[in-house]
Amino acid sequence: MSNKKIKVGITHGDINGIGYEVILKVLEDTRMADLCDIIVYGSAKIAAFYRKAMELAPVQLTQIEKAEDARDGQFCIINVVGEDTRIDPGKASETAGAAALAALESAVTDLRRGAIDVLVTAPIDKHSIQSPTFTFPGHTEYLEASLANTGDTDSNDRIPDKALMVLCSEKIRVALATVHTPISAVSASITKELIEEKLLRFDRSLRRDFGIHTPRIAVLALNPHAGEEGLLGSEESEIITPAIAEAREKKILAFGPYAADGFFGSGNYSKFDGILAMYHDQGLAPFKTIAMDEGVNFTAGLPYVRTSPDHGTGYDIAGQGLASPESMRCAIYAAIDIFRNRRAYDDASAHPLRRQYHNKGNDNVVLDLSKD
Amino acid sequence: MSNKKIKVGITHGDINGIGYEVILKVLEDTRMADLCDIIVYGSAKIAAFYRKAMELAPVQLTQIEKAEDARDGQFCIINVVGEDTRIDPGKASETAGAAALAALESAVTDLRRGAIDVLVTAPIDKHSIQSPTFTFPGHTEYLEASLANTGDTDSNDRIPDKALMVLCSEKIRVALATVHTPISAVSASITKELIEEKLLRFDRSLRRDFGIHTPRIAVLALNPHAGEEGLLGSEESEIITPAIAEAREKKILAFGPYAADGFFGSGNYSKFDGILAMYHDQGLAPFKTIAMDEGVNFTAGLPYVRTSPDHGTGYDIAGQGLASPESMRCAIYAAIDIFRNRRAYDDASAHPLRRQYHNKGNDNVVLDLSKD
Repeated sequence: MSNKKIKVGITHGDINGIGYEVILKVLEDTRMADLCDIIVYGSAKIAAFYRKAMELAPVQLTQIEKAEDARDGQFCIINVVGEDTRIDPGKASETAGAAALAALESAVTDLRRGAIDVLVTAPIDKHSIQSPTFTFPGHTEYLEASLANTGDTDSNDRIPDKALMVLCSEKIRVALATVHTPISAVSASITKELIEEKLLRFDRSLRRDFGIHTPRIAVLALNPHAGEEGLLGSEESEIITPAIAEAREKKILAFGPYAADGFFGSGNYSKFDGILAMYHDQGLAPFKTIAMDEGVNFTAGLPYVRTSPDHGTGYDIAGQGLASPESMRCAIYAAIDIFRNRRAYDDASAHPLRRQYHNKGNDNVVLDLSKD
Repeated sequence: MSNKKIKVGITHGDINGIGYEVILKVLEDTRMADLCDIIVYGSAKIAAFYRKAMELAPVQLTQIEKAEDARDGQFCIINVVGEDTRIDPGKASETAGAAALAALESAVTDLRRGAIDVLVTAPIDKHSIQSPTFTFPGHTEYLEASLANTGDTDSNDRIPDKALMVLCSEKIRVALATVHTPISAVSASITKELIEEKLLRFDRSLRRDFGIHTPRIAVLALNPHAGEEGLLGSEESEIITPAIAEAREKKILAFGPYAADGFFGSGNYSKFDGILAMYHDQGLAPFKTIAMDEGVNFTAGLPYVRTSPDHGTGYDIAGQGLASPESMRCAIYAAIDIFRNRRAYDDASAHPLRRQYHNKGNDNVVLDLSKD
C-alpha cells in the first residue's frame, strides 16, 4: 500500500459565506502540510480579502495553474474565477453561486483524472448555485450525477454506485434513508426496497470506508413510539421490520426498528457502528446535538471520497471571524482516513485466496464448493 | 400565599414495569418528606415484593384508607388493588393494565376533590390499560378528557382548557404541536390555527407554570432546511411563518421557523425559554439527547398539575434494579415547582389594578381607554 501523501482538493463554496474563513483558519496550523497536500479551488484574491477583513493569521497559499504543479509541504490555490469577482459577505448572489460552481466543476474534473485524491467541499447556497449545469438540491445529488457509475475506477466493488449521505463523528455515525424530502412525502418514500438498499450500502461503507469488520447497524422507526404496535402507524410492521429481516438474511447485522427519542435518550446509539434514520431531521437533529462542532458529512456509495463540514454557508456570521473551523478540519481528516481505509480494504480484498479444505478451522466449517 | 406542604399523589403505573422501582428509590431519601406529603396510589404488597426482589433500601410506607388520613412527615400508600394481584415483572398483562387504571382513576378523583394537590404518574403500558373507561393513546389524552373544562377550579384563566405536552428539564423546554400522530399524517395536521393555539397556550404556561415573565419561544420548521424557501416543502411559508406573525401581533415573542438540525447543533436552543416542535420525534429525540435522565413530561393547559418521568414502562429491565429514579425524582420536584408558580401567578394577578393615567411611565405610554 502506497504511503504517498494524499492530495486533498478543497472547493471554496459560496464566496459570501464562511467558506474562506473556515479554510484559512484550518490552514493556520501548518502541521496540516505534513499530513496531506492541500489544493484550494478558489481565488487567491478572495482569500486575501477575507484574511485581511477578519485579521486572520497569515497563511501562505501558493498560486498554481494545475493540480500537478502542487509541491510537497505547500498549501496551493488554483484560481477558478476572475480577479474582479464581487464579494458581498453575508449576501446570496448570482456571482457567488457561479463562483461556487466553477470551483466544484474544476475540482470534480481533477478528481476524475486523478490529479487529486479526495474532495472536501465548503458549503454552497442551494439557490444561487442553480444553473443549466447545476439543477440539484445539493452537493450530494450533483456528485452522484457526476461521479456514479462512470467506469472511472476499478474498485472491485460489486454493487452499482449510488450516493448515501452519512454524517459521522468520533461518537456517532448516521445515514439517511431519505434526505431532502418534505415531511409530507416521507412516508410514501419509505419502501422495503429502499431500506434494504440503504442497509446494504451502509454496511458496505462501514466495512470499506470506516474499517469496521462486522458492523452493527441500528434502524430507527418512522413513527412515534415505533408505531406503538400499529396504534401510531403501520410502516414499522409492514415495511421496516421485514426489510431488517431481509438484510439479516444477507448477513447484515441490522437491528430495530427503534423509537428515535428513547434510542438517543438512553445512549443506546453508542452501542452501534451506524444508525439508519428514516428522514433528515430525525437523524440530523440528534446527530448535531451530539456531535456539535465536529460533525462531518460524507457521501458514501460513490467511487470517490467526498466530505464536507456539516454546517451551511453561515451568511448570518459571514465575514465576522466568528465561525468555528472545527467541522472543516474534521472533514479533511475524515476524507484522508476514509481514503486510506478504502485503499487498505481494496488491497486486502483484491486477490482473495480460495478457501482451502485443509485450512485449519473449527469442526463446523463445511466446504462449500459452489462458492469461490 | 399558603405555605402548607404540597400533597403529591403518585400512581404506580404498570405494575410489571419499573414504576415501583423508581418510586421506592426516590423515597429512600427521607428528606423528600420535608418537602412534600407523598401519597402512592398502588399496593403495599406489590411495593414490598419489589423492595425484596431487588434488595432495595427499606422505605416506610404507611397504609391509609383515604388521602385525608395522610400525616405530615410520612410516606403513605392507598391500596387500589386486591392482595392477590399477580405480578409478572417485564410482561404486559391485563391484570397490570387494570391495576394501572385503578390507581389513575382513584388519584384523579382525589385530585378533583382537592385531597391531593398535584399528580405524578408512573409509566403505563398503552396497550394493556385499554378498557371501556380508558380508550386513549396515553395519559395526556385521558387526563384532558377527565380534567379539562370541568369547572372545578377558578383559576382566572381566560382560555379554555386543552392539554399541551411539554417536556422540561433544567436545560431545555419543548412543547409539541402534534403528539401521537403518525408521520404520514403530520403535514395535514399542521394548520395555522393549531400553531397559533399551541403558541398561545405555551406562552401562557411559560408565564404561569414556569414563572417566566416574557418568554421567548422558538418555533421549529416542519421540513428539512426549513423548507429551503419552498424547494423542500411549503408549510413554512404558507402556515408556520404566518402563524408566528399572528402570534407576534398578540404580543407573544415567537421566533422562527428554524431548521431543527442546525437549531440544536448550534446550541441555539439555549437562547429560548421554550421550543415548539412540529412533531413527536423532532422535539423528543433532541430533548432526550440533551436532558438524558432528568427529563420530565408535564401536561400543560389543564386546571391541575400533572407530571411524569419521560421514560416508559422499561419492561426490558423491570425487576432488575437497573432503573434510574432520576426522572421520577425530577417529575416530583417539577410538579411542586409548577404548583407553587401557578399559585404565585394567580395570587399576583387575581386583583389587577386598573392602569391609572397618573401612573409614572415613559413618555411614550399612551392611555388606551378601550382596555381595562
